[in-house]
Amino acid sequence: MADDFQPRTVAVIGAGAVGGYYGARLAQAGHDVRFLMRRDYDAVASSGLRIESVDGDFALNSPSIARSSEQIGPVDWVICALKATSIDDARALVAPCVGEGTQILVLMNGIGLEERFAQWFGSERVFGGLAFTCINRREPGAIHHIDYGPVTIAHLGDNEPRVVAAASLWDGAQVEVSTSPSLRRSRWEKLCWNIPFNGLAVTCGGITTDVILADPELREAVRGLIREVVAAGNADIAAHDGDAAGDPIDGAAMAENMITATDAMAAYRPSTMIDFVEGRAMEVEAIFGAPLQRAQELGVATPLIATLTGQMRALNRGTDR
Amino acid sequence: MADDFQPRTVAVIGAGAVGGYYGARLAQAGHDVRFLMRRDYDAVASSGLRIESVDGDFALNSPSIARSSEQIGPVDWVICALKATSIDDARALVAPCVGEGTQILVLMNGIGLEERFAQWFGSERVFGGLAFTCINRREPGAIHHIDYGPVTIAHLGDNEPRVVAAASLWDGAQVEVSTSPSLRRSRWEKLCWNIPFNGLAVTCGGITTDVILADPELREAVRGLIREVVAAGNADIAAHDGDAAGDPIDGAAMAENMITATDAMAAYRPSTMIDFVEGRAMEVEAIFGAPLQRAQELGVATPLIATLTGQMRALNRGTDR
Repeated sequence: MADDFQPRTVAVIGAGAVGGYYGARLAQAGHDVRFLMRRDYDAVASSGLRIESVDGDFALNSPSIARSSEQIGPVDWVICALKATSIDDARALVAPCVGEGTQILVLMNGIGLEERFAQWFGSERVFGGLAFTCINRREPGAIHHIDYGPVTIAHLGDNEPRVVAAASLWDGAQVEVSTSPSLRRSRWEKLCWNIPFNGLAVTCGGITTDVILADPELREAVRGLIREVVAAGNADIAAHDGDAAGDPIDGAAMAENMITATDAMAAYRPSTMIDFVEGRAMEVEAIFGAPLQRAQELGVATPLIATLTGQMRALNRGTDR
Repeated sequence: MADDFQPRTVAVIGAGAVGGYYGARLAQAGHDVRFLMRRDYDAVASSGLRIESVDGDFALNSPSIARSSEQIGPVDWVICALKATSIDDARALVAPCVGEGTQILVLMNGIGLEERFAQWFGSERVFGGLAFTCINRREPGAIHHIDYGPVTIAHLGDNEPRVVAAASLWDGAQVEVSTSPSLRRSRWEKLCWNIPFNGLAVTCGGITTDVILADPELREAVRGLIREVVAAGNADIAAHDGDAAGDPIDGAAMAENMITATDAMAAYRPSTMIDFVEGRAMEVEAIFGAPLQRAQELGVATPLIATLTGQMRALNRGTDR
C-alpha cells in the first residue's frame, strides 16, 4: 500500500457476483468492506469469500458480513450492486448506510437507476459504475472472475472533480478504473453490449456469446441492435447535453469493437441468460424497457430493440417476477 | 351430393391435424380418401377419426387407413400434408401413390416445397394448397378445428385452367376453396401470418396469438415483420413474373388485415409453437430460412426476419432435429 493510503469504510449492498468481486478487490487493497449477504451468508461465515480470477485466485478468509444494512451502518462509500429488478428495494437497503458524507456507487446494469438514488439521497453523492467484466457466481461463497474487469466511473451530475476524487477509492486496488465525463454516454455505451448479448442469449433459449457470434444472422442482429442503441443514445445525449454533447458515438465502429471484444472472450453466459435458465427474474426494464422508452420519446426508430424487449418481457413473465 | 359428383381416390400423406381435417372433409363429401397414418393408426383403426369443428363435429367411423404408401397405391390426388421438416422424406412417401394422371396438392407451410415435388414428379401435376385455418391435434384419432378453414389452391406453373379443374375436387366438400393465379404470391401472403405469429409465439417462450397482440411492442413487431415479408415477396414476384406480376402487395394493408383477423381469433397456439413446447423439430427452414435466403438474394433488407430466423434456428437446435 502507498504511504498515503486512506482506508475507507465501504458497504457492498447486493453481494452477488459483481458486488462480491469488486468489494473483495477493495478489501484486498485494505479498505474496511462490509458485505450485506443473504443467500451466501452462512457459507461465507464459515468458509470466507473465495475468488477464482483470471488475474489470480484470492480469498477473504474472514470478511465483514452482515444480514442487515442496519448492522453495517453509515459508511464512506456504498457500492450498490443489487440486481436491477430489486431497484424498488434499494432505498430501504441502502438508507441505513448513508450518513452525511456518504457517496454511492451504483454498480448496476441499465439506465435510469442513478436518477432513482438521486431522488432518495440527493444527486451530488450519486455515481454510476460500469463494470466491463465477465463474472459469474459459483457455489455459495465462491465467485468466478472469467475475463476483463475494468470499471468506468461517472458522476450523475457530470462533475469532473467529484468523479476524479471518487475514482481514488480504487487506488491500489487490482481494478482498472477510469472516469467518464458523461454518465449518460457511458450508460448507453454499456448498453451496446448488454442489449444484443443479454437479449439474444436469452431469446435463443439460453446460449453463450460464442454461439451467438457463430451464427451469421445473429451476428448481423448484434450489429443492427448496436446501431439502434447508438442512434437512441446519441439522440438522448444531444437532448440533454446540447452543444456540450461532443462527437456522437460512431455506431459502426462501436458494433465492430463490441463484436471483436466478444469474439476474443471464452464462451460466456451473460447474467440475464443465467437468470433465465435458472428461472429467476431478468433485468428487462433497466436494460431493455428504459432505453426503449427513451428512444420512443425521442422518436428514434428502434424496431430490433422493441421486438427484443417484447420478447424479453414475455419470457420474464415465465420467471418468478 | 350433386348428380354429377365424381368420387375420386385421394391419398393423404401426413395425416396430422391439417391433413386429417381436410382429408376428412373430402371423405365426408364422398371421396375415397386413404390416410397414411403412423402415430394415430391404432387409435383410428379402433375408434375412427373424430373432428371437433367450429362448423359442427363429425366423425369418420371406419376411414381407409394404411401404414405404408404402397398399401394405398396410385390415386387421382395426393394431398401431401407432411411437416416441412420431413420434406426430404416426402418423395419416398408420395411416389407409390403417383400414377400417370395423379395430381399432387402440397398442403404444407413455407416456400420452395412445390419446386421439390416438381423435380421428383414433374411440374404440371403439382399444386400448392394454402390452408388458412386454426387446427390442432388432440389425443390420437381426434382433431380440433378451432377457427377459419378456407383453402387457396394455385398451380406451380400458374396454369389457370388446371387450377380451376383442380379446385373442383372440393365441390360439395364443406371447405371454402378459392384459386389463385400466382402460387408465388399466395405463398408470400401466407408467410405474412406464419412468420410473425409462429416466430413470436416461439421466441416469447410459447405464447398464444392473443398474448402477442396484447403487448404493444410485439404487436408492432408483427407489423414490422409483415412489412418485411411483403417487401421481399414483392421483389420475388417481380423478379419472376416481370410485367405479369400485377400490383404489388400492399404491406400496410396486409399488416392491418392479418392483425384484425388474428384479433378476432380465440387464443391460438401456432403449430410451430406447439412443436417448440413439446420439444419437436420446428418448420424453421421452410417458413423462415427459405424466405430469408430469397430476400437476401434479392437484396431486400429484412433485419427483423433475419433476427427471428437466427433465434428460431438456435431454438430448433434444442429440439429433436
